[in-house]
Amino acid sequence: MGKAYVVDTTRSLYSLLKPVAVNDVSLSDEFWSPRIKTTIEVTLPKLYELLEQNDRINRFRWASGKIPRRPERSLYPFDDSDLYKWIEACAYALSYAKENAKIRELVNDVVPEIIAAQEDDGYLFTEYHGKKYLRWTDLTFAHELYCAGHLIQAAIALRRATGDERLFNAARRFADLIVDTFNPESLKGVSGHPEIEMALIELYRETRDKKYLETASFFLEERGKNLLKPRKKELLMLYNLLGGAEYFIDHKPIRKLSEMTGHAVRSLYLNCGITDLYLETGDKSLYDIMERLWDNMVHKKMYVTGGVGARYISESFGDDYELPNERSYAETCAAIANVMWNWRMLLATGDARFADIMELALYNAVLAGISLDGRKYFYTNPLADSGKSRRQEWFPVACCPTNIVRILTSVQGYFYSISEDGIWIHLYASGRAELNYKGKIINIVQETDYPWDGRINIKVEPVNHSEEFSVYLRIPGWSDIASIYLGDKRIEAKPGTYVEIRKTWEAGDMIRMILQMPIKLITSHPHVTNNFAKVALKRGPIVYCLEQVDNPGAHVWNILLDSEDELSAQVEQLPVLGEIVVINGNGLVLDGERWKDSLYLPLEKTRSKKLKRIRIKAIPYYAWANRSPGAMTVWIPVRDYPFLTD
Amino acid sequence: MGKAYVVDTTRSLYSLLKPVAVNDVSLSDEFWSPRIKTTIEVTLPKLYELLEQNDRINRFRWASGKIPRRPERSLYPFDDSDLYKWIEACAYALSYAKENAKIRELVNDVVPEIIAAQEDDGYLFTEYHGKKYLRWTDLTFAHELYCAGHLIQAAIALRRATGDERLFNAARRFADLIVDTFNPESLKGVSGHPEIEMALIELYRETRDKKYLETASFFLEERGKNLLKPRKKELLMLYNLLGGAEYFIDHKPIRKLSEMTGHAVRSLYLNCGITDLYLETGDKSLYDIMERLWDNMVHKKMYVTGGVGARYISESFGDDYELPNERSYAETCAAIANVMWNWRMLLATGDARFADIMELALYNAVLAGISLDGRKYFYTNPLADSGKSRRQEWFPVACCPTNIVRILTSVQGYFYSISEDGIWIHLYASGRAELNYKGKIINIVQETDYPWDGRINIKVEPVNHSEEFSVYLRIPGWSDIASIYLGDKRIEAKPGTYVEIRKTWEAGDMIRMILQMPIKLITSHPHVTNNFAKVALKRGPIVYCLEQVDNPGAHVWNILLDSEDELSAQVEQLPVLGEIVVINGNGLVLDGERWKDSLYLPLEKTRSKKLKRIRIKAIPYYAWANRSPGAMTVWIPVRDYPFLTD
Repeated sequence: MGKAYVVDTTRSLYSLLKPVAVNDVSLSDEFWSPRIKTTIEVTLPKLYELLEQNDRINRFRWASGKIPRRPERSLYPFDDSDLYKWIEACAYALSYAKENAKIRELVNDVVPEIIAAQEDDGYLFTEYHGKKYLRWTDLTFAHELYCAGHLIQAAIALRRATGDERLFNAARRFADLIVDTFNPESLKGVSGHPEIEMALIELYRETRDKKYLETASFFLEERGKNLLKPRKKELLMLYNLLGGAEYFIDHKPIRKLSEMTGHAVRSLYLNCGITDLYLETGDKSLYDIMERLWDNMVHKKMYVTGGVGARYISESFGDDYELPNERSYAETCAAIANVMWNWRMLLATGDARFADIMELALYNAVLAGISLDGRKYFYTNPLADSGKSRRQEWFPVACCPTNIVRILTSVQGYFYSISEDGIWIHLYASGRAELNYKGKIINIVQETDYPWDGRINIKVEPVNHSEEFSVYLRIPGWSDIASIYLGDKRIEAKPGTYVEIRKTWEAGDMIRMILQMPIKLITSHPHVTNNFAKVALKRGPIVYCLEQVDNPGAHVWNILLDSEDELSAQVEQLPVLGEIVVINGNGLVLDGERWKDSLYLPLEKTRSKKLKRIRIKAIPYYAWANRSPGAMTVWIPVRDYPFLTD
Repeated sequence: MGKAYVVDTTRSLYSLLKPVAVNDVSLSDEFWSPRIKTTIEVTLPKLYELLEQNDRINRFRWASGKIPRRPERSLYPFDDSDLYKWIEACAYALSYAKENAKIRELVNDVVPEIIAAQEDDGYLFTEYHGKKYLRWTDLTFAHELYCAGHLIQAAIALRRATGDERLFNAARRFADLIVDTFNPESLKGVSGHPEIEMALIELYRETRDKKYLETASFFLEERGKNLLKPRKKELLMLYNLLGGAEYFIDHKPIRKLSEMTGHAVRSLYLNCGITDLYLETGDKSLYDIMERLWDNMVHKKMYVTGGVGARYISESFGDDYELPNERSYAETCAAIANVMWNWRMLLATGDARFADIMELALYNAVLAGISLDGRKYFYTNPLADSGKSRRQEWFPVACCPTNIVRILTSVQGYFYSISEDGIWIHLYASGRAELNYKGKIINIVQETDYPWDGRINIKVEPVNHSEEFSVYLRIPGWSDIASIYLGDKRIEAKPGTYVEIRKTWEAGDMIRMILQMPIKLITSHPHVTNNFAKVALKRGPIVYCLEQVDNPGAHVWNILLDSEDELSAQVEQLPVLGEIVVINGNGLVLDGERWKDSLYLPLEKTRSKKLKRIRIKAIPYYAWANRSPGAMTVWIPVRDYPFLTD
């Protein structure tokens, strides 16, 4: 069995941290493990059925001549990518869930279906199958390079996880055709939806053939030259309707970018490609651009959940501080892409800022994208809802379901890294990892109830006698007080950094970390005007929300938080949600009856002498919309807002 | 000279009120008169230049063979309508500004350019000129019926205002072709953008030829049968992207509509057509639907300015209570359409509710759409802005500029109506009207500084000795206290109704009305969550905003209203804005510095001991963005929110 790396920067010169394979980490916790199990046992087989029902496999069968009629059920040219992403997710799963014969069989059977659809010269894109004259004619909308990218990623993942080279060979042939097609001397072009760039760089990592890196670089550097502007009138209308060059992040060369704009997933996938290029080339100017964009996103354009892409229109980033709640777009794929990008930034730097955002997005924005039973998905993720939004089993544009399974089956790969001088621990959950530090095996065993409890015990066990190296422990930025002990020795720990513990480690060594997890009332910058006089409840990495089903005393949009002192975090066993930490407290109820059917009323008609008091209960945001439909809100108005009580 | 009616329900059986022609009312006030003058002297000639520069006239010249090359500058098939709407606006102006030779010449010269482009069978749509095979093939997007509607409206207005029949005859020939084309036995279809329906009904009113009414009815009743769903794949993608049938208000038959949804202008133009059909047929079920939709819009989906259409995506109505401020779409055309629809509802019923909304939209949402100098336009109208939004001289989709001039040159036509038993006064401004009540001329003279001052003197003067009839005075819904005197006699007046004063009127009779105009702090329903703990300032019909240029002491998004008691309305002479009533008061400044570059902070880090006090000044919303660019907000956070001080 190989090493199932998601991003393999083992030999990347500018990757400070080197990854640990998904199958080198085994979780036994109560948070992630059940979700991974559900993903493998329920979600992946169900998605296969849906891929089959929705002609995602029939497209290949038709292209290979196995079925006579071209499937017409789907409208979109990017359907191939759904199957590729599903295979990638399965590959990670197969690297450690070896007993799962079902998934192995499904993958084994479907891979030949794809390969059979490949054309003689390596081209593999069912939308244009048999229409050679259409190839590369619509890089703006056709998504052929995007699909190629997902094919390459899936193929690499499958090769790494299982050693199966069939899909890899097919993908590489297609990649070779792309490399031969796009270059400064012949065809210039960029992909309407970034993805090919990071895929080609991963292929370079896998093969060490520089041509893939060069073509990726070419695709990146050609952006901003208006190559995506369509000539055909209908397509130009669509292009303009979506927001023109900015939608595609083609409005400027990548080196001139200064703000996160345009389609959120495109923008973040592009950043993954740029960061990958930096990891290989060390081009500092590229890294500086990434820092600039990160600052803009994290400090001006990111939801408190780690979700990004505020606007429905063009699924795009909004202006600074434009973060509507009921109409947050916050696409699940964008949250996933946020994790992907921050992971690459973390590999480049070892800077805890990136791990903080990655953790935030994982526990909140990403996980909200899938139901607890693993069967339904949110495409958009509102931060307040009237009760109309419910997860769906499938979408006409089905990107999110097959994307979230990629991250759910590979989440183990985000827990650890290796650097020149030691081992890095980014995420916390009970489990065991077998890490290879300079050829020596080091076992790490975590025991914790994280994210519900901040006490974490970490055993560091070199397999062969003692080894000197550093252990870098992430102290989350959300913690105010972190206590770390090595035996009886207390170690200084600054939140938002990695604490380095260097010693000669021996079997039996244990680090005890205690992260205080008080309930935090989070406020937003005043220019997020819709959050004025409101707070979000957060505890540890978990963002909470009020959901109607837990708060029968009042419409949750009418609830004010009374006094912060009365909030308490309690472990509760809730139907469907299981044993989790909820936040209980006291609320006041706005007298919505005064408005009745009025939308606007003079202030004097809305005064209340006495507001009704109720108990309130907040649950983790990721868990909302798994029970009876009802209103929800992350941001809760407060009675005593500090501005108002000077 | 004829009677320049905008909507001529003189002979409509179910129109309780009959209209008064634009040219029967002459304004001499300081509010509307200067704007009408600017519209005629500056805006209309400038728009002609822009129409010329943007090939709106060249399209017709090319179609008639006068120029050889088809203009390619514009992308859109609805360009013809811009010229038609400009002609309609000019027609109203020509009905009373007879000395304006410039406009007369421009219209006289351009009408033959249009007529020359008409095809032999009456077809007149430059987009498909010479491509007979394309006619009626894309009712979803091509806008040929929409353009036909605007041609018909312009032609009727020109005929009514000037007696010029040339365009009318051309329009009628096209209408005849449409009537012959669409009917239950041959082609079934509806217009992707409603407009043809109200135009055909107006043509029926003008000609009394029932076939136009029947075809309008046919277009209305055919909706909701999925006739707009395109077959071509590219168009189907666009259709889905826009929101499918709901965008076109084709998701249900009109008799099943219960909520305002879809593209706001389409939705409101459709309602104009439906209300017009009711005005002619008296079909009560149609009227009931209109009431239902009106309730939904006014009580769930309308901005405090009278603007509508909250969503950027598809320029559409949002969910109930979905009324974002920075990202309010509130298209200028939708505000105009709101006036048009409420006017028709008012004609049907004489119910003051409709006049209230019409007035609100006119003074606020509509007027904000054009700069005070008459040269620039807002397409979307934010209720809060960072300073980035500025009015533009023109737009690729140029619907708003030529729409707002239609209403600005015809606003006089919305002041009065006539019913069986008397005269109705809807709007207030100094001026003089010559009304024809049952064949007798009644002069009405208003003297007032409305909307800045609520004192209104109204002289009612029958030209020939005395006449007995009623005068219905609108008591605006925004007023709490209205005092009305006839001589020394005080008359009871209930806000939000028409007060009937019936007597035998004689020269010298004068009604004195005093509407108290205190400053109102308006709150919104708690489910407009972005307005929590905020108020909008309103005085009389005018909605106010804080603009940066008047409030140099702090970013206006950081300003809290201190105490409501200290607010005062004062007449001030401001550069560019002229002599207006502003609202001065005291504010507190949120300490935005505490956040610095942070987007989120724990509550305890944001407490302020002492907030800076400043003087604040609010100006009418319609006047914003006419001076130096800067932030603006209509909704202002308050220190003492009643919910918070129980």
